[in-house]
Amino acid sequence: MTLTVDLNADLGESFGPWSMGADEALLEIVTSANIACGFHAGDPVVMDQTVERALANGVGIGAHPGFDDKQGFGRRRVLGLTAKELATMVRYQLGALQAIARAHGGFVTHVKSHGALGNMASESDELASQFVGAVRASDPDLIVVAMAATALERAAADLGQPHVREVYADRAYNDDGTLVARNLPGAVLHDPDQAADRVLRMLEEGAITSIHGQKLKVRPETICVHGDGPEALTMARTIRRRLELAGVTLAPFHLTHPKAQP
Amino acid sequence: MTLTVDLNADLGESFGPWSMGADEALLEIVTSANIACGFHAGDPVVMDQTVERALANGVGIGAHPGFDDKQGFGRRRVLGLTAKELATMVRYQLGALQAIARAHGGFVTHVKSHGALGNMASESDELASQFVGAVRASDPDLIVVAMAATALERAAADLGQPHVREVYADRAYNDDGTLVARNLPGAVLHDPDQAADRVLRMLEEGAITSIHGQKLKVRPETICVHGDGPEALTMARTIRRRLELAGVTLAPFHLTHPKAQP
Amino acid sequence: MTLTVDLNADLGESFGPWSMGADEALLEIVTSANIACGFHAGDPVVMDQTVERALANGVGIGAHPGFDDKQGFGRRRVLGLTAKELATMVRYQLGALQAIARAHGGFVTHVKSHGALGNMASESDELASQFVGAVRASDPDLIVVAMAATALERAAADLGQPHVREVYADRAYNDDGTLVARNLPGAVLHDPDQAADRVLRMLEEGAITSIHGQKLKVRPETICVHGDGPEALTMARTIRRRLELAGVTLAPFHLTHPKAQP
Amino acid sequence: MTLTVDLNADLGESFGPWSMGADEALLEIVTSANIACGFHAGDPVVMDQTVERALANGVGIGAHPGFDDKQGFGRRRVLGLTAKELATMVRYQLGALQAIARAHGGFVTHVKSHGALGNMASESDELASQFVGAVRASDPDLIVVAMAATALERAAADLGQPHVREVYADRAYNDDGTLVARNLPGAVLHDPDQAADRVLRMLEEGAITSIHGQKLKVRPETICVHGDGPEALTMARTIRRRLELAGVTLAPFHLTHPKAQP
Repeated sequence: MTLTVDLNADLGESFGPWSMGADEALLEIVTSANIACGFHAGDPVVMDQTVERALANGVGIGAHPGFDDKQGFGRRRVLGLTAKELATMVRYQLGALQAIARAHGGFVTHVKSHGALGNMASESDELASQFVGAVRASDPDLIVVAMAATALERAAADLGQPHVREVYADRAYNDDGTLVARNLPGAVLHDPDQAADRVLRMLEEGAITSIHGQKLKVRPETICVHGDGPEALTMARTIRRRLELAGVTLAPFHLTHPKAQP
Repeated sequence: MTLTVDLNADLGESFGPWSMGADEALLEIVTSANIACGFHAGDPVVMDQTVERALANGVGIGAHPGFDDKQGFGRRRVLGLTAKELATMVRYQLGALQAIARAHGGFVTHVKSHGALGNMASESDELASQFVGAVRASDPDLIVVAMAATALERAAADLGQPHVREVYADRAYNDDGTLVARNLPGAVLHDPDQAADRVLRMLEEGAITSIHGQKLKVRPETICVHGDGPEALTMARTIRRRLELAGVTLAPFHLTHPKAQP
Repeated sequence: MTLTVDLNADLGESFGPWSMGADEALLEIVTSANIACGFHAGDPVVMDQTVERALANGVGIGAHPGFDDKQGFGRRRVLGLTAKELATMVRYQLGALQAIARAHGGFVTHVKSHGALGNMASESDELASQFVGAVRASDPDLIVVAMAATALERAAADLGQPHVREVYADRAYNDDGTLVARNLPGAVLHDPDQAADRVLRMLEEGAITSIHGQKLKVRPETICVHGDGPEALTMARTIRRRLELAGVTLAPFHLTHPKAQP
Repeated sequence: MTLTVDLNADLGESFGPWSMGADEALLEIVTSANIACGFHAGDPVVMDQTVERALANGVGIGAHPGFDDKQGFGRRRVLGLTAKELATMVRYQLGALQAIARAHGGFVTHVKSHGALGNMASESDELASQFVGAVRASDPDLIVVAMAATALERAAADLGQPHVREVYADRAYNDDGTLVARNLPGAVLHDPDQAADRVLRMLEEGAITSIHGQKLKVRPETICVHGDGPEALTMARTIRRRLELAGVTLAPFHLTHPKAQP
């Protein structure tokens, strides 16, 4: 294959005295880091350390904004935010990371919404537009990471914001491109090689195969892996190695999207 | 007088459902706004509204970072922050405001430390250096607002960061240029014309006259006024009018310091 | 009339440097105070001051727990809390107020859920049961304030927790006992005497008359008034005076429910 | 030896998605748990789980209040709190834990100040009095855990609040009874048996032997052990076993201080 793809993970999710995730190890595997911005996880010091390590590894820096809810880790849906509340919440987190990146000579290439905010922006056209609009007003060249066939992808396309289609290495898909709910059988792939096989097939075919065998035409531009627990690291390493063996080039967004550089 | 001076106030100190200060009125008087960044006061929506109104009035936008302590309004000293904790805390707040300003086509010209953080950065050479260094790493052209003859002014000078000397319109000074403690007699000036007289004298003489009649050579570049309560608004309005009557030009920093523009 | 009724208001909604509401004036009008517990509003100092003033006025002390969201003032619905998260969140806030009351020789008589939490507990049987269960586990004699004909009233009845039926002095009702949405015409009563007339009629008839003229059998045990703005104070004062003129006895819960005393 | 002593540890320091400490293992070793109350660490769910496990193990429940600073884990000194701010902050945290304990049929027996708050209350007579006064106003029978020969011990004695003298199993002491600073050689004991030897000697002699060999007359009533890391668990287990082998009875405060029971 002469394909190029990005490999991303959520990082910088430690907070104060509390540690989370195998960030050091994962930053040697992925090409893009989605860094928590202090609302659902992370704090200015953690953001700074994560940025520094990402730069040292040539890993692209992305903002990973979420709801302001550390106890719930940004996984609880918060309803009734005004468009202004949503937009400024996103910009605030994004700007905080940009300043921290700049202090290390780096820059933010992309933004990926976290947890409940991400789920809501995938489902609701209104919220997706608000989210993309908030990003766009701050920086029209910032890349929005969006699951294929979601409201978020549509909003980015409609508003003309650069965006990339994301697939999950370890999650099964429904026929419509949504993820199979975690509590259903087969929702999560545990075998690294099986996950790698599926990722390679998605890249080759330019399509997601759903849990029922349906094909959904999607050319994946970035693959999301996880980093909590030794099993997850093995999964991430296996996928990287298998992609390389297949001749796929792994590259962060600033190499594939020159405008993402300042 | 053919002098030019800036008039600044702390603004954007409302939070969620709680309102504080006469921001709308004050933004028609001052030339620079020091905007709270969500740690000691303010929130993303308040920051956004304040930026929008400042831009509509041609008022310069400044970051006003403080300790993360809303109950104490950033007035409690927090000890023992590492240099990294301090620097990243400042950058985080600064960047958040920068992104919100950018979304309105604006930019941040200056930074002024709030409350206990400001007091500590005025007194401690170590903390002042950390503060200025944090600002400098994010943006070497950002103007640091510093009280004359303080550790903060020295640090900005030493590190080569652009800075402006600030005087208070309504506070008496000790011989060494520090403020007379609020609980001492004569510490706070209440008469608007008396305060305006003193401000004009400071500008004419290029010196602060202390409460004991000593002169301290300082050319004020910005004058701080307050905006809480009707008395404060009258004070601010009187000072502005008296400065204009005396032929002093009032101008925000981006007009006097071209490099403060992006 | 030889009726006895309680008059309640939400109080203690200031926070740190931010003031809200006319608490001092309102504490001379109402018989029960629902005191914010530091999650959606309030802080330990505000709680302490409110308790002290309530006791000085013979006003009953109630806990007013809400979601942990000061920017949104507890008015945003937060979804997906586990039963344990909800129960412990309620107990935490309740216990904090109880300890503060105890330090002044007082005690908490009742609990009223705030904002979005209150709305959700009025609508969802599951959430209402979790809420009442949380209160019950901490104190089986604590009185739950519930709008008539809601899931919350049913849950309190089912679990055997003491509870009182609440009506709003200034809000119109739908036929099913829910409040008419604020954005609809006639939803809010602005005339104090008209509101007082309606309150008296509710007490006399033992029924709420809906906006469409339907009667819903409800004997109101507590009447909610508001305290923000001079208009609201006039409303509260008028209702109190009109109740007294009609011979209605105003009394806090610990006088009508002896078990609410420790 | 026919002595009785308590063995305590700081517990419940996880927060939301972040785990800290080996609470399950430690709750099988100690007799008293100092439970974080949601300000410097912990949250309502973590408090609830820790209370439940403590009760299942017959471990006494204590409140461990600290400054409201999760990023700094309550280890940063916060200056300038008013007496009222300090007192209500302590009562708030204490009451929150009491309500959670009550829901499990348990009760809080003791209170131990955390981190910077603890250090400040050990050094300052004024702050120590405020702290003990805050506890006393909520509950005159609650036991204050205090390092021997500190301002906190004096304040508890002066105000007549029940209190117990605490020694650290793994920390060296200066001649005046303060701890040797962590950065000095010999400040921390790493060998479990050496630490156990020293604990037993303190109990036998009713005295602390300082790092310089001086004896300070102190009868330890509770011994503090730590639980983070496998080394700490081994230390805690060794101390418990060695105490039992020496015939020392290990008992929580509610068995030795009957008034600590409700």
